Amino acid sequence: MNETIKILNKRRSVRAWETTPITEHHLKTIIHATMRAPTAGNQMLYTILQVDDQKKKDKLAKTCDNQPWIAKAPLILIFLSDMQRWYDFYASCGVKELCEKQNLTYRTPKESDLMISSCDALIAAQNAVIAAESLGIGSCYIGDIMENIEIHREMFNLPKWVFPITMLCFGYPKSKIENPKLTPRFDEKYVYYHDEYKRLEKEDFDEMFKKKIEAFNNMEKKPSGVDNFGQQFYTYKTGADFSVEMERSVKKAIKDWNEAKS
Amino acid sequence: MNETIKILNKRRSVRAWETTPITEHHLKTIIHATMRAPTAGNQMLYTILQVDDQKKKDKLAKTCDNQPWIAKAPLILIFLSDMQRWYDFYASCGVKELCEKQNLTYRTPKESDLMISSCDALIAAQNAVIAAESLGIGSCYIGDIMENIEIHREMFNLPKWVFPITMLCFGYPKSKIENPKLTPRFDEKYVYYHDEYKRLEKEDFDEMFKKKIEAFNNMEKKPSGVDNFGQQFYTYKTGADFSVEMERSVKKAIKDWNEAKS
Repeated sequence: MNETIKILNKRRSVRAWETTPITEHHLKTIIHATMRAPTAGNQMLYTILQVDDQKKKDKLAKTCDNQPWIAKAPLILIFLSDMQRWYDFYASCGVKELCEKQNLTYRTPKESDLMISSCDALIAAQNAVIAAESLGIGSCYIGDIMENIEIHREMFNLPKWVFPITMLCFGYPKSKIENPKLTPRFDEKYVYYHDEYKRLEKEDFDEMFKKKIEAFNNMEKKPSGVDNFGQQFYTYKTGADFSVEMERSVKKAIKDWNEAKS
Repeated sequence: MNETIKILNKRRSVRAWETTPITEHHLKTIIHATMRAPTAGNQMLYTILQVDDQKKKDKLAKTCDNQPWIAKAPLILIFLSDMQRWYDFYASCGVKELCEKQNLTYRTPKESDLMISSCDALIAAQNAVIAAESLGIGSCYIGDIMENIEIHREMFNLPKWVFPITMLCFGYPKSKIENPKLTPRFDEKYVYYHDEYKRLEKEDFDEMFKKKIEAFNNMEKKPSGVDNFGQQFYTYKTGADFSVEMERSVKKAIKDWNEAKS
């Protein structure tokens, strides 16, 4: 097994870091590797926003579903899906006027442009994670940056065709574990198909979640009102307050994105 | 510079492959490393769909903006943003009934769930790319899989809470180049900010696109009707037919996703 495969296979999220800042050399290496990520038509439809200001870090620890350890991250990078840069360029080139002259519709960014720019941003983000990992730097994704769009726009001066699709916290891990215990993934047969998608049924889920179902059933004091592992998981994850807020925030972001004129 | 950083830094898209199939060992290694990618709350909100059927490959070469070389890819993986698996599980657990009993709103997947599952899918996809690259296997992203949603749903039996966010073609490169010429990226100062987003202005774009603008100005025969590089680029990319189709297709996919009941 080559070194890179080893790194991909042993990576796990790290949320407890030394206070040591990331060295200048390591930071440069991460940013360079990030910017070498594949990007649609070499358009680089993303922006990397590094959060240095401690006050902003403190605020993010609240706006991103109250996770206090975010404030202590030595390095925070927000990945922005960015169509604004290209449309500001198009504006400076008179593209709208060209379209009017030639009787063409001037396409402004819509959902598809949000998706394709998010592809660029996330592919770049994962390059940052792998680069960091190879340098002994731990990382953690924070999807909650999609919540509270109004607050994050104001904090970071984000225009409407820019969307914070993910955030990464980095730091040197507090305890270096040589052979970390990895979180088990689903069995391959439930996530890896050939030629067509297959919906799963109760028997599949019983096997797929066997250990979690057993753990739920063996709990001495079950959470009140829920009868099984699925109900419990929905309650604290998919149906939880942060998910409701993310739904509201993303809906608002897309509405504004679709309606913006420049 | 460690091996992993070297791999991240020298990776470029490959679209011309040997006909040799990917070895079983390499394929297993790629899938395993893919499934070790970070995933929100260990939910694995994605499915990897390998396309083996040559007829389907031939069709993808048409439905993904007519790129004939897709049909020749020894390995094709479609990455699906997948909320269906979890909601089928919730249905089997009576989560909806629990919500009714407790007078809670039963949240079905909305735009935010599409975004968070797309994060999972893309992070996994980039692990596949890096793993492949480390094994000497070239790859190319095809964002055009987001087009023609109705056709792709039928081809692959995709339910409404599953969305093909990206596709990857893999193969052993036809010509092995030791020091490949890399596509230049934008200068760091235009894509990497600290603490707040900055919109660029004409002077910035003049510098950022200097070489492309010069190349346009030096063209003997300019494309008819366009006056500058920005207008040219918009015409063949952002405003082109495939972008119009992607806009339509993604809008339809999101509408169906939001309205689906199960």
